[in-house]
Amino acid sequence: MSNIDQMSANAIRILAADGIQKAKSGHPGLPLGCADIAYVLWGKEMNHNPKNPNWRNRDRFILSGGHGSMLLYSLLHLFGYGLTKEDLMQFRQLDSKTPGHPEYRHTAGIEATTGPLGQGMAMAVGMAMAEKHMAAKYNKPEFPIINHYVYALGGDGCMMEGISHECFSLAGTLKLDNLIVIYDSNKISIEGSTDIAFTEDVVKRFDAYGFQTIVVEDGHNMDQITKALEEAKADHTRPSMILCKTKIGRGCPAKEGTAKAHGEPLGDDNVAALKANLNWPSTEPFFVPQEVYDNYAALAANGAKAEEEWNKLFDAYKAKYPEDAKAIEADLDLDIAKDLINDEAYWAYEDKPEATRKLSGLALNRIKDKVPGLFGGSADLAPSNISDMKEVPFFSPEDYAGRNIHYGVREIAMTAIANGITLYGLRGYGATFFVFSDYTKPVLRLSSIMRIPTLMIFSHDSIGVGEDGPTHEPVEQPAMLRSLPNFHMFRPADATETLAAWYSAVTSKETPTAIVTTRQALPQLAGSSKEALKGGYILEDSKKETPDAIIIASGSEVNLAVKAKEILAGENIDVRVVSMPCMDIFEEQSADYKEKVLPKKVRARVAVEALTDFGWGKYVGLDGATLTMTGFGASAPQNLLFEKFGFTAENVVKKVKEVL
Amino acid sequence: MSNIDQMSANAIRILAADGIQKAKSGHPGLPLGCADIAYVLWGKEMNHNPKNPNWRNRDRFILSGGHGSMLLYSLLHLFGYGLTKEDLMQFRQLDSKTPGHPEYRHTAGIEATTGPLGQGMAMAVGMAMAEKHMAAKYNKPEFPIINHYVYALGGDGCMMEGISHECFSLAGTLKLDNLIVIYDSNKISIEGSTDIAFTEDVVKRFDAYGFQTIVVEDGHNMDQITKALEEAKADHTRPSMILCKTKIGRGCPAKEGTAKAHGEPLGDDNVAALKANLNWPSTEPFFVPQEVYDNYAALAANGAKAEEEWNKLFDAYKAKYPEDAKAIEADLDLDIAKDLINDEAYWAYEDKPEATRKLSGLALNRIKDKVPGLFGGSADLAPSNISDMKEVPFFSPEDYAGRNIHYGVREIAMTAIANGITLYGLRGYGATFFVFSDYTKPVLRLSSIMRIPTLMIFSHDSIGVGEDGPTHEPVEQPAMLRSLPNFHMFRPADATETLAAWYSAVTSKETPTAIVTTRQALPQLAGSSKEALKGGYILEDSKKETPDAIIIASGSEVNLAVKAKEILAGENIDVRVVSMPCMDIFEEQSADYKEKVLPKKVRARVAVEALTDFGWGKYVGLDGATLTMTGFGASAPQNLLFEKFGFTAENVVKKVKEVL
Repeated sequence: MSNIDQMSANAIRILAADGIQKAKSGHPGLPLGCADIAYVLWGKEMNHNPKNPNWRNRDRFILSGGHGSMLLYSLLHLFGYGLTKEDLMQFRQLDSKTPGHPEYRHTAGIEATTGPLGQGMAMAVGMAMAEKHMAAKYNKPEFPIINHYVYALGGDGCMMEGISHECFSLAGTLKLDNLIVIYDSNKISIEGSTDIAFTEDVVKRFDAYGFQTIVVEDGHNMDQITKALEEAKADHTRPSMILCKTKIGRGCPAKEGTAKAHGEPLGDDNVAALKANLNWPSTEPFFVPQEVYDNYAALAANGAKAEEEWNKLFDAYKAKYPEDAKAIEADLDLDIAKDLINDEAYWAYEDKPEATRKLSGLALNRIKDKVPGLFGGSADLAPSNISDMKEVPFFSPEDYAGRNIHYGVREIAMTAIANGITLYGLRGYGATFFVFSDYTKPVLRLSSIMRIPTLMIFSHDSIGVGEDGPTHEPVEQPAMLRSLPNFHMFRPADATETLAAWYSAVTSKETPTAIVTTRQALPQLAGSSKEALKGGYILEDSKKETPDAIIIASGSEVNLAVKAKEILAGENIDVRVVSMPCMDIFEEQSADYKEKVLPKKVRARVAVEALTDFGWGKYVGLDGATLTMTGFGASAPQNLLFEKFGFTAENVVKKVKEVL
Repeated sequence: MSNIDQMSANAIRILAADGIQKAKSGHPGLPLGCADIAYVLWGKEMNHNPKNPNWRNRDRFILSGGHGSMLLYSLLHLFGYGLTKEDLMQFRQLDSKTPGHPEYRHTAGIEATTGPLGQGMAMAVGMAMAEKHMAAKYNKPEFPIINHYVYALGGDGCMMEGISHECFSLAGTLKLDNLIVIYDSNKISIEGSTDIAFTEDVVKRFDAYGFQTIVVEDGHNMDQITKALEEAKADHTRPSMILCKTKIGRGCPAKEGTAKAHGEPLGDDNVAALKANLNWPSTEPFFVPQEVYDNYAALAANGAKAEEEWNKLFDAYKAKYPEDAKAIEADLDLDIAKDLINDEAYWAYEDKPEATRKLSGLALNRIKDKVPGLFGGSADLAPSNISDMKEVPFFSPEDYAGRNIHYGVREIAMTAIANGITLYGLRGYGATFFVFSDYTKPVLRLSSIMRIPTLMIFSHDSIGVGEDGPTHEPVEQPAMLRSLPNFHMFRPADATETLAAWYSAVTSKETPTAIVTTRQALPQLAGSSKEALKGGYILEDSKKETPDAIIIASGSEVNLAVKAKEILAGENIDVRVVSMPCMDIFEEQSADYKEKVLPKKVRARVAVEALTDFGWGKYVGLDGATLTMTGFGASAPQNLLFEKFGFTAENVVKKVKEVL
């Protein structure tokens, strides 16, 4: 590599150091340590066009160590993605384009929001799966229209996190040769040398997963980096992991190789020392020589040319395979399901008791051909979650066109992989027991932050689990998910509400959804309707305009509410039953609608849910009551548990009388 | 091994099959597949005394694959731990001693509640750390009073889960030679052969972690099993992993080696076939020949003798080292901190603004000598969490007596390890950012179910995080933890409340606690007091007996409430300020006390918390209001974020006026 290459890499260091110094906050260790890797990768190896960050066949790059955001921002500025020098000067400031961690949707060229370590790795696995999938479905001889790589860069923290094990074990099984993981091995973490907590042989571990493993002895030597990346790209049988031995804070004499380089500004004196050490031509903050900009512009032009060529290829493809070209658009069309709202066959059901998990399976299978981008599966619980698409092959090295996924017993990686698939433009989904939504929470939070419509199927939604007992019986999980901003948790009560939940999930564009279903059979309700799409609605109204009391319930408890209403009617107590399949969507309704369903003057209110009472206070107020779980469940047949914990129509009646 | 050995192992199979068949529910695959391993381990290799399940120096056994509970119940019955045949017949029935998954505290001889796969593995690591720790502190030449092993048994699911990576990577680093992991490798998971999702080389992976790895080619050959266990015990430099190749459902011709053996009863015909295949002398359900009972009794007698010898050794130790013997009791004394309530030095603080994370560090360091069983650390964020005990060494292979732990970037394993330490009798703790409590949730749930006082320090508790932005700023986490049954989440407002939180945590015997602290400095409040131990209390009262309005706040927002009260006083509005550092404990107070603090007739109520509003409805009702976050945070300096999101005294005033 030439001098201009080294200067170009150093420009990343300078901008990062200046940006962090100006913000008086940030993480210089990674940008300085990985500048050489990033320059070679983005400048010489990656196919990307800064003029069009959405080019479909671009290589993807995920900075799993999101705290090193100034690395990305510097690259986006230098390559001309639209980030200005002023944006860099606003690093970590209110409403800037350059927040503390990279944010998807917020800044052009950011493929995923990262920060929680390891999640970027698993999202990269999801993107690599999506790429293999689309390539298998649509490439033709002489038309390799989908043939890009997915790169993920992360450090010791990413490798320590459990999610990295889950996602890479699966990536190895699936032989994702388009996945290239770059491990920034600097042997430093926040508490000091990694020797104190992390002495594993990462190369051997990745060997065990079935990766090609490559070690770059000097992660600042561009020739070595280039050679490693070329080797990684050349292996067409398995994913690659490149371990790059780097120095954290490289270039800053006082901090290089120490934990102090990680997470605080270098200090004015050290920034000056960095610039002197790198022979930087100016001490002016954010100064980049014109020749460096010119070099980046030339490299960016290569990317533009690459897209141009691809566009020609794709035009020819469209001409020769118009149906396939249309099918690609359909796979990536987030609007494709909206006509289902008027599709009678979709909304049909048999009037017999059925578990909502089975009805969910029914909905999925009615939708699968209409939403061809649906791509997902279960964390080894498909027979219980009823989450497979029938007569659809499984995604495997032998058949990447398969749309069902065997995730293995890996809830957290599953969810992040589903995020990666969804970021790719398909509809990623996962499934497990509701109680294990706990494992998915750290990742669903990122789905919500990124505003992507990842979908989760959570079956076995209460003490209805029965014999498996308290470790498998959710109680508090609704509060965990309902309190998550920009997230929809549906707990449907019957077939109609289950179909509504699925309709909502597959038409959502910016909000992730969880569909929470029962193990046990539930009766079909006469009063249920598409009004369920409003989140909460009047399922059975009182005869009087103003009811004596309101019973609010969701899922398996709605039919108890209906029964209680009947009993109360016999005693001249006239109640309204409100079904609340999705509290989150109900909250999004107009104040008028909410007042209509739950008039403020009616204070006699009872909420019934065989789960936590936490969160119901908003609806029952200080004068109402809840019939809910007050502790953990137990191991016994399901019907006995409902009795033991008091979920009977008689108890609902009793509660209503108490609040009257 | 002899015929009686084989029959004794088969007795486990028979009882498991019969128990599951009678329950019409359960998982026969593991008990049948691991009966030979379990028999050799419990009968020949493990030091345990069925007459005293609490013998301090017993070997620990954790069934990480908790769904195989009938394996454990059969062992506990056969060895004479007190489980009767009638108990086995009540498997998975209401209020039985034999619930679906093994439950700590519920059944004698169960070391930990298991079920969520992999968590048992990490708890075993925690117990092994505790053993090394106690041995290093107290063993003397010729007095190896603490010298036992910790065994964990689990299958493919445990190995797939991310937590297994985190805990074993750390176990290797820490060279825990007392840890012996038995991997029941049957190559079957619920969705089918593990080939579909799990082809990694587990042996190589454990090599990479620094384990001794041993492969038992025939996991049903007792001689091979014995030899492997002997090898594992003989390695005094590192932990061991024994991969036992087994057949799931071994012994049942129609199901052996298939996914169908995993999670459903074998069926009457297959139970009969099992008995015929094993030449079982009777078809009567739950029949065990007397010679088998006699054999188990003889093996149990060995254990009783072992404890007897140990008791003699320990008596001699007590005589020779009375101070050490006392110190051991102190380490394991859950009552030791209770006198702190009247210790003025403990409750002292400087009247200056301070971050509660720093005050938490202060409390920890005041407590550390008084609660010598405190043993914990951070997931690589100690400098941020302020979670180290000062002048106390770190736990490492060079110094197992160290009480500070470097967990590495491993939140979920950290929490389960802390559970293992706490189960051992010490006070295990962990620390990370509050936003990453998401990762700890699946494990804290188990702490709550087990009723053990594991402690977590969660710093950086709101948008007060500042520049790191939305991925690092908690919003909904309080709802997640407050809704968890039997869990205390403290969010203290100043020094006094922080000291109260710590006092509550280290005197808790059956409830885990999280202490949630600020990054930013907070003023000391004139009105704060030990009343904080009631969870919620009147911090500043109205002049009138009945206040015009009540402001309820926690943590960093309490001082805003106090300021708002002052402003409102100037306008002749007389409000009460209630500080709510721990909603969970407030809920445990008497109805009278709660009514005193929050009189039902006062409907003008405002809750202020720079976090979700979810859960506050219970206190503000239909007529009150909340000043809370409505979405995710942002990246900017902390003070600007508080302004941006409206957390000012002026806005509190506005809200109060709105509800008046």
